[in-house]
Formats: sequence, structure tokens, C-alpha cells
Amino acid sequence: MDTHPSSSLADPRLDRLAELAVRVGLNLAPGQELVMTAPVEAIDLSRRITEQAYRAGASLVTTFFSDDQAALARYRHAPEESFDAAPGWLYDGMAKAFRRGAARLAIVGDDPTLLAGQDPDKVARANRARSAAYRPALELITATAINWTLVAAATPAWAAAVFPDLPEAEAVARLWDAILAASRADQPDPVGAWAAHNAALMARRVMLNERRYAALRFRGPGTDLKVGLAAGHAWMGGLSTAKNGITGNPNIPTEEVFTTPDARVTEGVVAATKPLAYQGTLIRDIRVRFEAGRITEASASTGQAVLERMISTDEGARMLGEVALVPASNPIAGSGLLFFNTLFDENAASHIALGQAYSRCFVDKALSPEALDAAGANRSLIHVDWMIGSAETEVDGLDAEGRAEPLMRRGEWVR
Amino acid sequence: MDTHPSSSLADPRLDRLAELAVRVGLNLAPGQELVMTAPVEAIDLSRRITEQAYRAGASLVTTFFSDDQAALARYRHAPEESFDAAPGWLYDGMAKAFRRGAARLAIVGDDPTLLAGQDPDKVARANRARSAAYRPALELITATAINWTLVAAATPAWAAAVFPDLPEAEAVARLWDAILAASRADQPDPVGAWAAHNAALMARRVMLNERRYAALRFRGPGTDLKVGLAAGHAWMGGLSTAKNGITGNPNIPTEEVFTTPDARVTEGVVAATKPLAYQGTLIRDIRVRFEAGRITEASASTGQAVLERMISTDEGARMLGEVALVPASNPIAGSGLLFFNTLFDENAASHIALGQAYSRCFVDKALSPEALDAAGANRSLIHVDWMIGSAETEVDGLDAEGRAEPLMRRGEWVR
Ligand SMILES: [Zn+2]
Ligand SMILES: [Zn+2]
Ligand SMILES: [Zn+2]
Ligand SMILES: [Zn+2]
Repeated sequence: MDTHPSSSLADPRLDRLAELAVRVGLNLAPGQELVMTAPVEAIDLSRRITEQAYRAGASLVTTFFSDDQAALARYRHAPEESFDAAPGWLYDGMAKAFRRGAARLAIVGDDPTLLAGQDPDKVARANRARSAAYRPALELITATAINWTLVAAATPAWAAAVFPDLPEAEAVARLWDAILAASRADQPDPVGAWAAHNAALMARRVMLNERRYAALRFRGPGTDLKVGLAAGHAWMGGLSTAKNGITGNPNIPTEEVFTTPDARVTEGVVAATKPLAYQGTLIRDIRVRFEAGRITEASASTGQAVLERMISTDEGARMLGEVALVPASNPIAGSGLLFFNTLFDENAASHIALGQAYSRCFVDKALSPEALDAAGANRSLIHVDWMIGSAETEVDGLDAEGRAEPLMRRGEWVR
Repeated sequence: MDTHPSSSLADPRLDRLAELAVRVGLNLAPGQELVMTAPVEAIDLSRRITEQAYRAGASLVTTFFSDDQAALARYRHAPEESFDAAPGWLYDGMAKAFRRGAARLAIVGDDPTLLAGQDPDKVARANRARSAAYRPALELITATAINWTLVAAATPAWAAAVFPDLPEAEAVARLWDAILAASRADQPDPVGAWAAHNAALMARRVMLNERRYAALRFRGPGTDLKVGLAAGHAWMGGLSTAKNGITGNPNIPTEEVFTTPDARVTEGVVAATKPLAYQGTLIRDIRVRFEAGRITEASASTGQAVLERMISTDEGARMLGEVALVPASNPIAGSGLLFFNTLFDENAASHIALGQAYSRCFVDKALSPEALDAAGANRSLIHVDWMIGSAETEVDGLDAEGRAEPLMRRGEWVR
């Protein structure tokens, strides 16, 4: 038996992706330990990353493989109490590794429909138990105490969701092509390509941070939306420097520059430009009206009930927590695919997110909860990105007096 | 891609082995957590065990897959310092799980030649670092604080070592046949077969414990050996009750009853009846002379240098730490195979072990180190089992005055 996906045995693009993950995503330091998670179907990429990590001087690479079949066996056969259990001892161990300086890499390749047929109450309870147990480790990641990165691998179940009409081998090969192109691993000099890409993202961040717009205005078919920007906001995107001093790319791929809106200011109408996959349901043709920051009307051609339940999660669920600008002509959008995976879909087009805001999208990285509230940073249990950009989108930056400067025309940067 | 070994997809014997592992090996309690380790090539068996564990009421099953390719990448590419590193944070987490009541299951399927070509100094350092980091968890296992078990899966690399002349698929199928037969999973009622087997082992233990022999005498071609038994010794084998009160079979398969010798008493000559695989080398035709407990002469037709290095590890390495009785006609011996794996090879024939003794093979389970020394329980960094029994072996029990009672004739129990 061999656990290599057959399509990838001798594909040099996979070694380039592994090298990108270690050198660009993590920027792994010599002597640094690495904790990796991966679906077991991604073992081929995990091996290549392990090799690259040791070549980069890793002291130790420890990989946890997840197995969808074992996860399903739990839903099918475990007793009721199981769904309130979580391996806290393992997550505590991972947090200990992070505090001792380990870096973190996750290979993403989840089956977006894995739990679609399971009891939603069990799913919710298991997620809650897992989230509570994982919180100490996750907080070290979200606070960027350490360098971490996400990178993707084409698994058969994910490929089947993206290419439902293709045979498995072809679907996996097509998804690999899309992942490798989006991750710039198909280019002759991927590390150089990422340096150029990071420089371009940084130039946008610097420009936007210098302009200090009070708001953005999005226009397009079905869209005329004003998004206020929080006082003291900072644009992020591309490279990020962790508190351990290491600068890397937490997401491979990434195309967005993003910041935190003043959630109280959002006004107007907006039409989604792609379907939104939410908890196993595809919500199509979302149209929403914001008044004084809050959604007052919401419709969808399919999944409207799920949309309404989503925005009713809590008070912040019908207000914005993120706004992100992505040019229409980027490698992910170019694929024309819906990936059912945030790492890809949120980087395919300009987007907004309902729900929780990022506290680090501020010039002052140590704002108090009260100061964040005062700036209009939203709070919610959810953070759901949905795409509002296309090749027909126009974006203006507005100053405090409402004077407009063009930022994007026909979906492309003009500034 | 599918990670099932092709030979096992629809083999009901594998579900029986999984059921044996959970019900007989662990005797898993409802609500108990399970920590499993497995070579990634054994994922099919690990899934079946996961299902059986949840059916038995497990609250949570967490599996760590090991990957030989990642282990080799470390030897090939990691910096020098790596070989003194170990994931202590993970082992500490496992120890925490055990202290919270988790059971432990290991699927055995190691490639016996994996590290044969690697720098022995790096191998030794990595083993030492791992052993030190794993000690807190291992001590909970060796002290049987919790119920634990070992069970085997046929992996391609292991099968290639056992059947070097067969094509991979056939070698794996043949090794599975041998594992399933040895584990009694090929029988119509495996749980019933284990109940009968455990009862037979228990009857031998009771008989031997009642006889309270002072020594055993082994005779056969090249062998005339007296092995003293420690004062206060107890025979073990088959079922074992952990300190959490759960009774299970720590090894599947198991055929031995065993106890602790008085290491100072061993006298005579002994010829191994099978080659000994030690650290990647096959030592053939071992012949040894014991005088007053210590090896004074040792020869082998191949691997003599390795044998001499082994018995020179420390003072206890040339003295006995275990004696075990196994009838010649057992399912493992019946296979005629050398497995290069202690779980199988030590259960194929009566054996002795050089090195560390088991402190629990005493009537009093809480003897002090001084009391263990006084009883002649050996101490060493090694514990190496080697087979001395065959269908030509005769074993007598000797009382304190040297009077002999026949125990085995032509390799079979007569008492
Ligand atoms: Zn975003
Ligand atoms: Zn987002
Ligand atoms: Zn033994
Ligand atoms: Zn032994």
C-alpha cells in the first residue's frame, strides 16, 4: 500500500508548495520545533513539509493526522456523553509546545459536507466542547504569539465537493491544480513570486493606511454600500510579524488587504457575488439592506432560512466585523471555482464579514475592550465572510467630509 | 485515494481482531477515554478499533499515527541538535490522559529494519531523548495503573522483512493470516476462544505458583540449564488486573507464563532455538555458558560482535531477568515464522531474557528495591528475550533439595 495520492507522486509543484509553507508561510527559524496537523489523506504533502522543515533546521516535527472516518464513527456509535468530551490533555500539550517556542502549521483539506447528515445538536455540542478545550492553544495563535500558517492539500472528499461531476482522480488532480496555482507553487520561482506578491500587498496597506479613509463605498449590480472604517483602523494583509519576532504569511494563499469597520456606520444595499457555504448549506443570491449599521432586510434565492438563523445568532451577527479588498483578476478568482473553504473563497473577491471584528486591525495593537467598542469594532460569536466583489465592482475611498477618491474600477485597483 | 490495505477491505477477521482488542485486550469500560497509537499504514485496523471502542461506550478515542517516512526524513535532513529532542509536551499530555482514566492501545506494525542504515549514535541519542521524555507516561503503563493492550497489524515494511521473497500484496496477506491466527481472530468465536485460552494460562499460573519451585531445568540439543527462581516469585501471564480495577489482556497474542529468576543461580549451557533480531542485526546460533549467574562464554555463527556488545551493556546484561514457559505447539510457533517482533517471537517458544527483571512477578507487589535485590531480581538497561524452547525441549521443576518433577516433555506440558 502506498498513501501517496496517485496524481502527486512525482509532481515538483508539491515540493515547491512544501518549501513555500516552511520558508514563506512559517519562515521557520533554525532550531525551532514544528507542530503540524493534517488530514491523513494529505500525508504526501505532510511528508514533503516535514522534509523541508528539517532542511530548514527544525529541531523536531510532530504531526497529528485527523481521520474523517474516525470522526464519523463517533457520530454513528458513541454514547451521548461523548459529544461533551474533548482531548483537553492534547490541546494543553500543544499550548505548552507553543509557549516553548514551537511553530504551528495546519494542512487544510476538510470535507465540507462531512457532518451534513449528522444530528445538528451533537455537532454543536462537540464543537463547543472542542472549542473550549482548544481555547488556550488557539489564543496563542490568534494573538500571533508564534509564527503559524495554513496551507491546503487536495483530498478526495473536498475535491468531490468542488467537482461533483468528475471522477475522483480527475477531481483531485483539478483541485491540486487550483491549489497550486492559487498558492503560486506552479511558478518557476515561487519564493520570488511570494516576495513580489507580499510587496504588492504591503504597498496597498501602506497606501490605505496613509489615506486614512473614513469609509469605503462599493457599487455594482445590486450593490450601493457605504462601509465606515473604525477610528484608528489599520489595514493588514500578506506578511505578519508574530510576537516571537518571526515574519511570515499566516495564509497560503492570500490575496486580501483587510481592516475593521465602524460597525455602526454601514448603510445601503449589497448583493453577494458568489454563493455562501454556511454549515453545509449553500445560500444563493444573498441581498441585504443595512440601516445605521444593522441588517434590516435579507433575502436569498435558496437558503433564506439558514441566512436568517445566521444573522439572528446574536446582536453582532447582523453587523460588519471585517471589510477586505481583493482585485477581481487574482489567481483564485481566475479559477472560477467555489471552494467551500474560507482560505480560498475569501481570497477570491472583495468581501465583508458579518460578526466578530479583528482587534489587531488597529494602529494601536493593545486597545482595551472599551476602546474597541468606542471605535465601533463589532462583537459576535460568528465571523462569516461573504463575497461582494466582481469585475463590475467599483470602490471609492471617502474622507470625513464624504469626498470620494476612486480605489477600484471594474474590480481592479486604480490607486 | 483509499488508505485501506487492499487485502483487508472486506475481511471479517479484522473486525474480530478489533473487537478482541477492545473487549478482551482492554476490556474498555463504558465512558472510558482511549488513547491509541498506530503506524499510519494500520489506519484500517485503527478505524475498526475506533468503531468497536465507541460501540463499547468509549467517551472519546484519540489516535496518533506514526509515519516511518517522517522518521526517516529526520535522520536524513535534521540538524545535529534534533537527535536530543523529543515531544515531551505530547507525552506529558498522554500521561495526563492516563491519570484522568484513559485506557491505552498500541497497534504494533513496525518496520524492523527502518533505522538499520542510520548513524547508530543518532539512533541511540534519539532513543534516549524519547525514553526520558516518555518515562512519566510509560511508568503508568508498566505499573499497570491503567488497562492497556498491544495488538498487531500487517504493514508492508514489516511483511517485507518476514517474507522477503514474496511480492508486497502477498507478503502482507500472509502476515495478516499469521497475525489473525496467532491472535485467535480467525476462530468462529474469538472472545470465547480467549476465555478458554486465559483459563488455560491461569491454570498453569496457579499450578506453578502452588508448586513454588526453587529452580527450573531446561534440557535439549545444546542445552542443559538450571534457572533459579526468585524467593517469593509469582507466575504471571494472560489476564492482568490494572490498578483501576479493570482486567484485560495486555498482549494480543500471548502464550507465555513467566516469572522472575534469582539471577545469581543460573548455571549451565543453553543454545538458542531461533535467531535473535537485535537492533537490526540477526544473531544466529547463540550458545552461552552461565556460571554462578553470569554469562562466561558466548558465541554465535553470525552477529557475535553484536551479541558481545549487547551483554556488555552493563553488569546485569549478562544475567537473567525473566524465564517464560510456552508449549511448542502454539499458534505462533505453528506458523514457523520469525516475526522480528517481540510480541510474536517471545510467544513462539519457551524463552529467557537477559537484563531487567519484572518487579510485579512477585507475590508481594510492593517489594522495596532492597527486597528485590535480596531476592535476586536482576537490574539492567536492557531486556532482551531469546528463545530456548522447541519440540525437543524438556523442562523440570526442582524443589529446594533438587528433586525434579517433569513439567514439559517434547516441548509440551505434562503437568
Ligand atoms: Zn478576509
Ligand atoms: Zn474574515
Ligand atoms: Zn516473556
Ligand atoms: Zn520479556
